[in-house]
Amino acid sequence: MALALGVDVGGTKIAAGVVSEDGRIVEKVRHPSPADDAEALRTSIGAAVNELRGRHDLAAVGVSAAGFVSSDRRRVLFAPNLVWGHAPLADLLEDEIDAPVVIENDANAAAWAEYRFGAGVGVPDQLMITLGTGVGGGLILGGAIYRGAHGIAAEIGHIGVLRDGVRCQCGRTGCLEQYASGRALERDARLAADAGRAPRLLERAGGDPEAVTGLMVTELARAGAEDALELVEQFARHLATGISSLVSVLDPALVLLGGGLSEAGDVILRPTAAALSRDLTGGDDRPGPELRISALGNDAGIIGAADLARDVIE
Amino acid sequence: MALALGVDVGGTKIAAGVVSEDGRIVEKVRHPSPADDAEALRTSIGAAVNELRGRHDLAAVGVSAAGFVSSDRRRVLFAPNLVWGHAPLADLLEDEIDAPVVIENDANAAAWAEYRFGAGVGVPDQLMITLGTGVGGGLILGGAIYRGAHGIAAEIGHIGVLRDGVRCQCGRTGCLEQYASGRALERDARLAADAGRAPRLLERAGGDPEAVTGLMVTELARAGAEDALELVEQFARHLATGISSLVSVLDPALVLLGGGLSEAGDVILRPTAAALSRDLTGGDDRPGPELRISALGNDAGIIGAADLARDVIE
Repeated sequence: MALALGVDVGGTKIAAGVVSEDGRIVEKVRHPSPADDAEALRTSIGAAVNELRGRHDLAAVGVSAAGFVSSDRRRVLFAPNLVWGHAPLADLLEDEIDAPVVIENDANAAAWAEYRFGAGVGVPDQLMITLGTGVGGGLILGGAIYRGAHGIAAEIGHIGVLRDGVRCQCGRTGCLEQYASGRALERDARLAADAGRAPRLLERAGGDPEAVTGLMVTELARAGAEDALELVEQFARHLATGISSLVSVLDPALVLLGGGLSEAGDVILRPTAAALSRDLTGGDDRPGPELRISALGNDAGIIGAADLARDVIE
Repeated sequence: MALALGVDVGGTKIAAGVVSEDGRIVEKVRHPSPADDAEALRTSIGAAVNELRGRHDLAAVGVSAAGFVSSDRRRVLFAPNLVWGHAPLADLLEDEIDAPVVIENDANAAAWAEYRFGAGVGVPDQLMITLGTGVGGGLILGGAIYRGAHGIAAEIGHIGVLRDGVRCQCGRTGCLEQYASGRALERDARLAADAGRAPRLLERAGGDPEAVTGLMVTELARAGAEDALELVEQFARHLATGISSLVSVLDPALVLLGGGLSEAGDVILRPTAAALSRDLTGGDDRPGPELRISALGNDAGIIGAADLARDVIE
């Protein structure tokens, strides 16, 4: 049974896991992620890989990265939160570790993991939406990852939902990411707390609006707090606006919600599904997608990247 | 050499053409389109088919229809401007004419024609945007039409570009079709003429704002009239907003502009390309799509539907 390694490189940590052919993580380690130094980042990835190579026979290595990845899957073109440098990371790692290496966009890797082993098994046309600090996307079309002409498809955090809306880091205004991400939920919750519209949240944060987090919102919403429920409802309406546009373009059978916020489960899923059913073009005359919470949580990037890397050697 | 028939069913006429394997139209006829009577519509399609069958040996028939087409390509599910009824049109036609029949969405057929014989030859990942009365879309991904899980992908006229914007026939608000279609251009031009902001247009329309047409706008813009250029510029900005979102999702190598408005050529293409280059997420760090005017004009639906029908028998 061939083992592959998946390395999930985030802004604060590197998580590496040895993954079996049936998608189980056999062993997992964590290393620090030096976000502002390309060489230190590569060294830290190399250290994680070498630690696990010492204990397992690894056939291939997949690196999951938040950012635009080149279509040959050898380097990161553009990433908002990490300095990757312009060197082809896959080549450099292969020199060090003597196994084939591929780089994958993190949301693509997560989408693949869910399709192969998670909540999307058996559904050839599906869209994964990762709701983390930002909003990412992964597309499975006809049973394969759809990467686009230049490798950067499914950057759904940057579809427009509000013309002349909030300025996005990407340069545009009104991007979905500015309304349906963890960062957006936190921003809106802090504004509500500061304006006296979220008493339960403010209490939970010890009276400091700036101490309010997205997690507090979903926890209090689950406990039935009105102010938190209202924030989640608004979040869900924005998310559904984006999903509705995506469904018009892609007509998927399934939309999966992943990323940190999706761990809130029904508290996010139900209002989003309700808003989407009101918002879909064609209404009752058209079949719509099923909406589900993803199954693999934080491990999806590791599992997907490892599985895609194994494909290269087969 | 196998000939196939393409039938383009529009709101005012049915155009049928005999198409050769290399995409040329050998003979074309027109019949009336009884838009509000499903049986009369089918009879008229049958008459067009039978007229050409008398003179050519036809291997298959493709029908191009504006609307949502079922994934088995046997019937129209939902169409804004024509009454199709619930009967499976393809079955009924096959009973009459003794040749395989497929139904295709009109923008899908046009996209396929351009990919096979027109402005998109050799580009496996491309998006066709048809700018007619409404806005339609066709997706070629990996060298094949992408139809989605239920056959209704690429309905790009209904992606949102403006939350709480103009109410669309589809039930949503702010759809692209309400800002970047022939109908929208005409609406905005009449409003401008009525408000005294479009003197040249008003003059061209004999002083009656309600007589202003979209064609007058593009013609006057080509002649350099300020008021018309301003309307086209606004149209192009809206269109670019939509294209930018679509590029974030699909990452195509090529975006083709088709439909009646695309016949204006550079007058539409240049401001759209300029607005798009300002509006793309990732800016200079990402490769963007090429933007082109389609090549086959009004014949694209006939040619594409015929070619796709021929594929069924091969």
